[in-house]
Amino acid sequence: MTDATIVTAAILAIGDELLSGRTKDKNIGHLAQVLTLVGIDLKEVRIVPDDEEEIVAALNALRARYTYVFTSGGIGPTHDDITADAVSRAFGVACIHDDEAMALLGAMYERRGLDFTEARQRMARMPQGARHIPNAVSTAPGFIIGNVHVMAGVPQVFQAMVDALIPQLQTGTPVQSRSVLSPFGEGDIGGPLAEVQKAHPETSIGSYPKFVGRNFSTDIVIRARDAGTLDAAENAVRAMLDTIAATRSA
Amino acid sequence: MTDATIVTAAILAIGDELLSGRTKDKNIGHLAQVLTLVGIDLKEVRIVPDDEEEIVAALNALRARYTYVFTSGGIGPTHDDITADAVSRAFGVACIHDDEAMALLGAMYERRGLDFTEARQRMARMPQGARHIPNAVSTAPGFIIGNVHVMAGVPQVFQAMVDALIPQLQTGTPVQSRSVLSPFGEGDIGGPLAEVQKAHPETSIGSYPKFVGRNFSTDIVIRARDAGTLDAAENAVRAMLDTIAATRSA
Repeated sequence: MTDATIVTAAILAIGDELLSGRTKDKNIGHLAQVLTLVGIDLKEVRIVPDDEEEIVAALNALRARYTYVFTSGGIGPTHDDITADAVSRAFGVACIHDDEAMALLGAMYERRGLDFTEARQRMARMPQGARHIPNAVSTAPGFIIGNVHVMAGVPQVFQAMVDALIPQLQTGTPVQSRSVLSPFGEGDIGGPLAEVQKAHPETSIGSYPKFVGRNFSTDIVIRARDAGTLDAAENAVRAMLDTIAATRSA
Repeated sequence: MTDATIVTAAILAIGDELLSGRTKDKNIGHLAQVLTLVGIDLKEVRIVPDDEEEIVAALNALRARYTYVFTSGGIGPTHDDITADAVSRAFGVACIHDDEAMALLGAMYERRGLDFTEARQRMARMPQGARHIPNAVSTAPGFIIGNVHVMAGVPQVFQAMVDALIPQLQTGTPVQSRSVLSPFGEGDIGGPLAEVQKAHPETSIGSYPKFVGRNFSTDIVIRARDAGTLDAAENAVRAMLDTIAATRSA
């Protein structure tokens, strides 16, 4: 465990529609799963409105604290898409029409026989000096500045950007997990499970009630970066459940 | 608009399982919709791990800033359920086994012929002086202290607690919304839509791309607390779309 590499991250989801309940977020859960798989520890998520002050404040708090910040939303062509401005302000650089993005988008709209309107040109805006995140779905790129990765809110586009981005990131030793289904409710296993956690401090043991009808069972999830550590804790959990079962049938 | 009552809120979702991607949150979107309906403006959401320091820090930041804070998760019977401790610490009061909650839970487990274990007794813990949020599903109450409302993470229980809670809250003048479907993509309407927003500053106009195959259309959502204001902006949006359609067919 001592030589495990720890890489941390936060997600900042941006959009009034997430806070009004009009749109149910799909990006947070998706990226959370992907990050876990590659060994990046997601430590915090925030959702803020389309408000420049709020975006800047959240971004500055998160980027100072975690290895990476990933944002979703607010990089489209309309007046309520203000993420590029907010990110530029957070970094104290100009928000410009990026030459390479202008060329990409201009060529794409020409191929499609569509006007490259001022609104569409907004999608080429990013902080001066930012690098692109390619967008295989709708061309308009996301961008990277410092440790901040700015992606679209539309899930198909967000996911394409995540796919393009992940191979470029520093990743850590992935946390592995084992799931043990307990036929007993949390109230029956809570005491002994706390003892197992205490005896295996290098693991993180979570307990998740499953509620069907009026009956509870429990998913016990053991997490650790090291397989041996994980094996030992899993064995202890299984032994604990056997003991409870034996007591019940006695 | 000037005499509208504004009531604000934040959601703090607590749980390692949300950050690992194991569990896809269902509570944020549900409560966001309910709050919008009753006229409470959800301004911010945070998701933090089962870590007392992190919960306390987020809670203190949010409760100082918004009318209400709603939390989900971490009030079950196991060692990783530490929300009651964290909330008590944030308010600087003792975390106690509440008498009324002990009586409720004790009676329930007696009826069900189950031991009222130390783990189950943990579900009666709350900050000294907290009031209950009734739980029609599984009895163990949520609680209220100051402007903070602490609820379960299991969606069925969370929703039952929200139902019990909402009638007790101060509510504001609800934001109403109108949705206008634009057959044109955001790139075609972005410029004129920004003009409509500028001419109707008391509304908030959002633009949400719908992406099917390779074609974009756009949901334009106009939001305001006042019906007259909303009517005027909706008419302006429809007139704008008619103008674009006429230009296209000319």
